[in-house]
Amino acid sequence: MNEPPRSGDNKSAAQTGSRDGTMTVPVPILMMVPVEVSTDAEKKGCWVKLYDKKNYEGDSLMLTGPISLGRMVGPFGFDWENKVRSLRMGPKTNLTIFDNRDFRDQDKFITAGQSVADMSEKMGFFDNFRSMMVSCPGAQGDPKRNK
Amino acid sequence: MNEPPRSGDNKSAAQTGSRDGTMTVPVPILMMVPVEVSTDAEKKGCWVKLYDKKNYEGDSLMLTGPISLGRMVGPFGFDWENKVRSLRMGPKTNLTIFDNRDFRDQDKFITAGQSVADMSEKMGFFDNFRSMMVSCPGAQGDPKRNK
Repeated sequence: MNEPPRSGDNKSAAQTGSRDGTMTVPVPILMMVPVEVSTDAEKKGCWVKLYDKKNYEGDSLMLTGPISLGRMVGPFGFDWENKVRSLRMGPKTNLTIFDNRDFRDQDKFITAGQSVADMSEKMGFFDNFRSMMVSCPGAQGDPKRNK
Repeated sequence: MNEPPRSGDNKSAAQTGSRDGTMTVPVPILMMVPVEVSTDAEKKGCWVKLYDKKNYEGDSLMLTGPISLGRMVGPFGFDWENKVRSLRMGPKTNLTIFDNRDFRDQDKFITAGQSVADMSEKMGFFDNFRSMMVSCPGAQGDPKRNK
């Protein structure tokens, strides 16, 4: 689970169709849910869990895809820009992270099922992790796959 | 939708089984989801939307029940204690709010389907709104009702 993700996939961001302004992913909503709801979402396989400490420790926030976050902020002053230190991903999740807001500047593609125990620049990531896109290859529109 | 909720239901808090320490509601999880996911949750009828401005304006956070929040804080420094100015509730939702943390001190019971356009003390609520319990009468364990 702790192997470093592969690099060199910088073109993947454009493939999601967001960089060129043709965003089709809807607005994200922040929800506080019972743990059963998050477990159900986890079973669908398209999710990312962000942690504020290395090695998947500390506070966490779960994202379910498909979702694009041009800024890592939410309602009521919620702000986790540059606060993510590790992350886990579901088996049907692709993730592109960017070092600037609105999917700009450097990007890195992380493939399905990867985990990143240390999201720092020295590990090949960005110290500035400011926007992200979560896509769901194979998880959408196929109810059998969601069981 | 804007009628003030009835008061005088102070005993309701104890009926949920939380005040006496027999908490059965699981730990809440914070999720960022696509709008379709929140729409699905809304259809189940057990939810509360909190707004940081009166009249359901400003930022919002959605809670799905059953859920109990002893403190209105979340991961990554997320904090909406005393920041809620209005709220809406689903048709299968009961809500008890408290003016202190951990379901203590004054409480107020708000019945299913109510909305509160102005959550201030002068409207019969609390300026200090610090913990809450969301229950789901009739919404749990009955899949037909969730359609």
